[in-house]
Amino acid sequence: MTYCVGLMLNEGMVLLSDTRTNAGLDNISTYRKMFHFEEPGERVIAIMTAGSLSVTQTTIARLREAIEDPEADETQSIMKAPTMLKVAEIVGNMLARVREDIDEKLSAMQGVTASMIVAGQRRGGAMRLFLIYPEGNFIEATEDTPFLQIGEHKYGKPILDRVVKPSTSLADAQKAVLLSMDSTLRSNLSVGMPLDLCVIERDACRVSHTRRIEAGDEQFRAMSEAWSRALRDGFSQINI
Amino acid sequence: MTYCVGLMLNEGMVLLSDTRTNAGLDNISTYRKMFHFEEPGERVIAIMTAGSLSVTQTTIARLREAIEDPEADETQSIMKAPTMLKVAEIVGNMLARVREDIDEKLSAMQGVTASMIVAGQRRGGAMRLFLIYPEGNFIEATEDTPFLQIGEHKYGKPILDRVVKPSTSLADAQKAVLLSMDSTLRSNLSVGMPLDLCVIERDACRVSHTRRIEAGDEQFRAMSEAWSRALRDGFSQINI
Repeated sequence: MTYCVGLMLNEGMVLLSDTRTNAGLDNISTYRKMFHFEEPGERVIAIMTAGSLSVTQTTIARLREAIEDPEADETQSIMKAPTMLKVAEIVGNMLARVREDIDEKLSAMQGVTASMIVAGQRRGGAMRLFLIYPEGNFIEATEDTPFLQIGEHKYGKPILDRVVKPSTSLADAQKAVLLSMDSTLRSNLSVGMPLDLCVIERDACRVSHTRRIEAGDEQFRAMSEAWSRALRDGFSQINI
Repeated sequence: MTYCVGLMLNEGMVLLSDTRTNAGLDNISTYRKMFHFEEPGERVIAIMTAGSLSVTQTTIARLREAIEDPEADETQSIMKAPTMLKVAEIVGNMLARVREDIDEKLSAMQGVTASMIVAGQRRGGAMRLFLIYPEGNFIEATEDTPFLQIGEHKYGKPILDRVVKPSTSLADAQKAVLLSMDSTLRSNLSVGMPLDLCVIERDACRVSHTRRIEAGDEQFRAMSEAWSRALRDGFSQINI
């Protein structure tokens, strides 16, 4: 499984993904699920992936090919697309096509599936955050729903529901996604460290900050323990 | 959907279920999902249900019929079965049989499914807590895993993972299941008030305490708000 979450806030966007990939329970590996594409000051796009690795890797590889192909036009390269909506369409179409290709090969078996979160901004445009479904259609984060999740999303949703608003600061947003991930890591073994964190400040049109959090990261461990302590203290102070 | 949770602790057992049943999103009703059977001082059994209402109602009705049938023997009546393990087997067999019957009638459509939690103790025996799967097989709570959940279980699991141990007091256990339910109510509309809470003290062999918590219950609302406040305070005190 996977857990990826993206927040769209007034100050910018915050993305977090895990890296655990498994084919069965006895074949576990680490794969990056967060990808950045940027032309600093002009355009930044981050993509997070969940689902079948063969689908997501091929989709990302083909998106890269189109970016590097000098003949690719604005309907093919996400770095040339005129709007973030078109970017989401290109990613959605590519994901749907790759999934269908692979599905055909596997027709005798259970179908493959994958989904993605696409976040980005181009100069002059608004920040946008999309969730792309396996069929290529997508939804977008709004003021009312400033976060999107893919993969194993339920364990980490209560903390986001309570804390995240568009006015949340980028510092608090990083804390919120890390605590959301922490709850997921505790409850589902198939989501695992290391983690990839990415911050994109509004109108920067570049990746403002990235951080890989390795297993055993002292800061993450301290935060996780402080949160456990806060929950236990809060719990013991409540009367029913 | 449904959310039911049962804890087995040193001091006794604590059970909590919601009551929302829906056939589609525009047909929502309230049905009890927790059922008690007792011969005070001799035997107490509580059953909670999740899944297709036609399956769970029929299963409970047939279990009741067998209890009331003077000719039913110890392989048929859960009030005559010699051990809690046999009780779980009777419930499991009945659930599987009813599910198959109804599945046949609906063969053209998607299959129906249902699961149950069975908790109880008979005089001279140990307290036991079982989760019965749709196929009739079951698992049992242990020291290492002192809680079992059915239905929409993921949102409410993180708090249980952090707080519930066999040594947890019955008062703390009630708080834990109510907060677990509170997180689930916030995140999933198809789980809804009122709630049924039940406490069975160790070796009492009777239902020690039950409570129906209606929508708008002042105490529940206060607890829910105190928990939100504790989470927000805890959140704001953590540094990353």
